[in-house]
Amino acid sequence: MHYYPNPASGLDIHEVNVAVEEAFAEYGRGKVQMPPKVYITFEHGDFRTMPAAIPSLSIGGVKIVNVHPGNPPIGLPTVLALTIILNPGTGIPEAILNATALTDLRTGAAGAIASKYLSPKKSVVLGLVGSGLQAQAQVNAISKELTIREIRVWSRDEKNALSFCKKYTNWECTSVPLEKVCDCDILVTTTPSRKPLIQQEWIRDGTHINAIGADAPGKQELDPAILSRARVFVDDPVQAIHSGEINVPIREGLFTADQIAGTIGEIVLGMKGRKNKDELTLFDSTGLAIQDLAIAEIAMKSGNFINLRFP
Amino acid sequence: MHYYPNPASGLDIHEVNVAVEEAFAEYGRGKVQMPPKVYITFEHGDFRTMPAAIPSLSIGGVKIVNVHPGNPPIGLPTVLALTIILNPGTGIPEAILNATALTDLRTGAAGAIASKYLSPKKSVVLGLVGSGLQAQAQVNAISKELTIREIRVWSRDEKNALSFCKKYTNWECTSVPLEKVCDCDILVTTTPSRKPLIQQEWIRDGTHINAIGADAPGKQELDPAILSRARVFVDDPVQAIHSGEINVPIREGLFTADQIAGTIGEIVLGMKGRKNKDELTLFDSTGLAIQDLAIAEIAMKSGNFINLRFP
Repeated sequence: MHYYPNPASGLDIHEVNVAVEEAFAEYGRGKVQMPPKVYITFEHGDFRTMPAAIPSLSIGGVKIVNVHPGNPPIGLPTVLALTIILNPGTGIPEAILNATALTDLRTGAAGAIASKYLSPKKSVVLGLVGSGLQAQAQVNAISKELTIREIRVWSRDEKNALSFCKKYTNWECTSVPLEKVCDCDILVTTTPSRKPLIQQEWIRDGTHINAIGADAPGKQELDPAILSRARVFVDDPVQAIHSGEINVPIREGLFTADQIAGTIGEIVLGMKGRKNKDELTLFDSTGLAIQDLAIAEIAMKSGNFINLRFP
Repeated sequence: MHYYPNPASGLDIHEVNVAVEEAFAEYGRGKVQMPPKVYITFEHGDFRTMPAAIPSLSIGGVKIVNVHPGNPPIGLPTVLALTIILNPGTGIPEAILNATALTDLRTGAAGAIASKYLSPKKSVVLGLVGSGLQAQAQVNAISKELTIREIRVWSRDEKNALSFCKKYTNWECTSVPLEKVCDCDILVTTTPSRKPLIQQEWIRDGTHINAIGADAPGKQELDPAILSRARVFVDDPVQAIHSGEINVPIREGLFTADQIAGTIGEIVLGMKGRKNKDELTLFDSTGLAIQDLAIAEIAMKSGNFINLRFP
């Protein structure tokens, strides 16, 4: 059994995008096993257990990931993750991966694949709501699939937006008010908000939105009127209804499950997609265990590991 | 983060029994979180993901355990397991335990606790159907709670029963036909059978049965008429109906969920139990994630570990 302490280091972002795209395709073909995430709650946070298998890649395993919002003041990330990979032939645990940074990368890859298929154009103005690690992961991954002409970023604390832009000196990057961020081709929201931040009237026709932040019941970043106006694609309907951007509007009767236009798997397989340049499209990402398996497979090929005695 | 390669070594069996008993009590009080096991199937086996938390012990985590019946010919056990323990306060993974041998011990402990409360007497003749590792675990654990006067053991291959007895020279131990094994005070069945082995007419009034072997849909060891005659206790009704001894009889209409007399948690709390010495009692054990957490907590106190860099 191998332990990978730092498997995200040196990964090729485009290769990660391709692997996540292939996992979505297998999902679209109905060829993966992926039961719903299981939640366990603690007093100050929770953890989610995400088992899955992708037979075509001969890979199966479990991602375990927590959310503890009180961690940053004590010097720990809010989200920490492990992925355990089992040998399909014998069931023996083959690898344990520190999956915290891998989680950022595989979520970035999902946004990149959705953008590749749903963007109104190949050269884009990117609007970012939130300027944390996931915003960086989205920029890094999307830049491998599309040409970024300009970045507009908003953060609740402008200092964060300004220091975000300092990391991206290759592009024109500016800190702007929330409404100005929405004047873009691809809007990416990555905040932990529980109230809509983005108003319907700020969004132009033809925009594509990656709604990334909402990943638990009660979270939402967008005015529900945006969902009614957009063609809404999800990664997994069960997870999206439970904990994605659509979860609160569905509970409040402002959106219904039959308004979901399709899945990212169907998009990747060419069964669904953007119909014209004026359509507003939206990808509601909750994060799939098969994304974690796909990135683990790449990381195990190149990452440094230590041997652990098992059994 | 610590890795425990051999955490079962040197554990005090009685201490394990006590810890598992306390986990059952917390279950009986409704104070644990334990969603149903999640199954992922491979071509030649499966694995089960078992997340849980016991707030009173400040412990939470996930056991991952496979069943690959083709493993022994290639030198691997059929069942291999890992347990991952998270810190409830921060969600950080604290420990990864090689849980293969721990799984045997915690299942043995469940049989011992059921026997302690449901045995018709304190000094018993023990009948064993099956003579593998789990039969040993049951003897070792039960001997800490009751006095064993004699062991009668049956194995499909008599050589196995004879070599089993060579391990237990402290007691009178004999290899006998299946019907003779049933002439006992406590009958323990630990086979992977998919057809009833034990006939109803072989079982005396007053016997207690630990039905351990059935842990997946389709498995059964007992004539369903035994279930109708006995007071049937389970560890968890959802799991027992899905994959315990009662799973096949329920599917075939020979037993119904409302015939379940209660849970081991209710027994431990004194809410339910044996009513008289002539009653036939049965404990249908499927194995709970909270048992794995309870034994992990003990193992982490005394076991040797190596440090792994995380995050």
